[in-house]
Amino acid sequence: MKRATLKDVAERAGVSKATVSYILNNADKPITEETRMKVKKAMEELQYVPNLGAAALTNKTSKMIGVVIPQTEPGSQLMFQNSFYSEIISAIEYHARKIGYHILVSGTDVDESYMKLVYERNLDGVIAIGVYPDEFFQQFKKIGIPTVLIDSYCKDEHFHNIGIDDELGAYMATKYMLEHHHTKIGFLSGEMKEDGVIKKRHEGYKRALNEYGIPYDKTKVFEVEVDFNCGIEVATKIVKERIDVTGIVTTADVLAIGAIKGFHQAGKSVPKDYSVIGFDDLEISKYITPGLTTIKQDIYGKGKCAVEILEKALNDKKYPKQSVEMQFEIVERESVKNLS
Amino acid sequence: MKRATLKDVAERAGVSKATVSYILNNADKPITEETRMKVKKAMEELQYVPNLGAAALTNKTSKMIGVVIPQTEPGSQLMFQNSFYSEIISAIEYHARKIGYHILVSGTDVDESYMKLVYERNLDGVIAIGVYPDEFFQQFKKIGIPTVLIDSYCKDEHFHNIGIDDELGAYMATKYMLEHHHTKIGFLSGEMKEDGVIKKRHEGYKRALNEYGIPYDKTKVFEVEVDFNCGIEVATKIVKERIDVTGIVTTADVLAIGAIKGFHQAGKSVPKDYSVIGFDDLEISKYITPGLTTIKQDIYGKGKCAVEILEKALNDKKYPKQSVEMQFEIVERESVKNLS
Repeated sequence: MKRATLKDVAERAGVSKATVSYILNNADKPITEETRMKVKKAMEELQYVPNLGAAALTNKTSKMIGVVIPQTEPGSQLMFQNSFYSEIISAIEYHARKIGYHILVSGTDVDESYMKLVYERNLDGVIAIGVYPDEFFQQFKKIGIPTVLIDSYCKDEHFHNIGIDDELGAYMATKYMLEHHHTKIGFLSGEMKEDGVIKKRHEGYKRALNEYGIPYDKTKVFEVEVDFNCGIEVATKIVKERIDVTGIVTTADVLAIGAIKGFHQAGKSVPKDYSVIGFDDLEISKYITPGLTTIKQDIYGKGKCAVEILEKALNDKKYPKQSVEMQFEIVERESVKNLS
Repeated sequence: MKRATLKDVAERAGVSKATVSYILNNADKPITEETRMKVKKAMEELQYVPNLGAAALTNKTSKMIGVVIPQTEPGSQLMFQNSFYSEIISAIEYHARKIGYHILVSGTDVDESYMKLVYERNLDGVIAIGVYPDEFFQQFKKIGIPTVLIDSYCKDEHFHNIGIDDELGAYMATKYMLEHHHTKIGFLSGEMKEDGVIKKRHEGYKRALNEYGIPYDKTKVFEVEVDFNCGIEVATKIVKERIDVTGIVTTADVLAIGAIKGFHQAGKSVPKDYSVIGFDDLEISKYITPGLTTIKQDIYGKGKCAVEILEKALNDKKYPKQSVEMQFEIVERESVKNLS
């Protein structure tokens, strides 16, 4: 079946190509309602679909949003092992689709800038999830493209921000351990980057310890890559080297799930021998055994909110910069034992 | 920073816009090496990036591939709860990017056809994962767009196919249970659709039972939605209604993981009271406790292979239809008990 062109529509409606084009682009031209209806009918009969690539050249809008998530390493695969990213992308895709946008999820090769992608695809806006080097964020500012950052403390006034109070989140997780009478509490986290959420969470961990008069002990802090295997490795190390902890506060459910596995592999049990608390509340975290006690973020809500802000920014160049702090809560399941 | 245009490049190189356009599009025109170099230099200096939307109009190629995955329900979110899809998309994105393509992952709204998406975005090819109504596949054939189907038994000669021997996979899983002296074996599966993988797996389950002289018992077959909760529900039902099984063959790891959780919630233990075998070998399946014994599919390999085939089909209109059967194997972990 041949695809219907704009010319086909014009011929069937008995009008000029320019007229069809004006109607498609909502141009400010005097066109009678009768002509509009004729063109609309012809489009329906021919199953005509405008080419958004062509429309992008006319309207300077591609109806496409770039979504940035971390890669496992430079130039490599997207970090889908952590389902935080697929869950949030699912929400972004759904809400973007509802307002007529598609999303482009793409990594970049080594030595390739994301700016190239923005230009190639004529992206209308960007949603970036996570922490990247400052140069990376600066390119969006240079281009002047509307950008929403999720989970970054880069507070440049060009960017809209969505996040949670990460310091408070880790404070609450640590306090939960303390309230369950743990005093020897480890901190298992991703890399503490400048402007990153992990640094804030680390501060919250320290604040809670401090409140309970427990000295901060660097040997109980484990800064690793955020994946299951690193969780296993740290748990293995804790058992093998008899590191003196009874509970672990983590900054990601994948680390917590890995740690639980590591303890089991080392012949220990959670929560009998060690207590573990997560951060995120991934879908899977309620289906593992023991169910993971964790800080529940509204992952879906973060994605939805990012699309809502971006939509407003796309439609109104003067839309003021937004900084949204989402709610969160502790979900109690079975991975933390009361020591009293 | 203003984006450099084709006109800017032409001016800096001191050539006409047409010349720059010819070079960009590899047009068959007599252009001297010197001119080519001048234009190349101007592009580099201006950080010129061609607009692929514009190129698409000239070359009829968008360098974009559509990737279709199921939605949780018509018009709703993409089915990212099952990380099978994020794992395979990760592989597809990576390999597509390596050959200069981007992927478009989009659901469709109710009453919206995927054909509209193909036209709007001028997609070059499609990779569809899973089983859809025949009309859905037929639209790709009508449009004549190169299409690779993953995990579908729709053998229309228009489509390239990638899959595994699903009948054999479930046969092996069931035989594994039988070899571990289970004789009361349930089958927990997704919906058995025409041309779908589940129907084949159901046949493999029956063949293994038959080989061991065990009559097929419909009351031990549970056909549900493929998600964690359905796994929990079936396990709960088995315990509550004392359905006479000791082992469950499942057609997806998410069902198996849900079933394990359901048994635990009902006060039973895996593998002590019930044995469970999965299908897929998701990343998470080795990190849960007990580790899931499962049929390991090469999910990454399926995605990579789909891109390789599509690339050949895009470059050669006469590329013959491919039908690839991937390898698989049983991974033994801890979720099946030997009853002898």
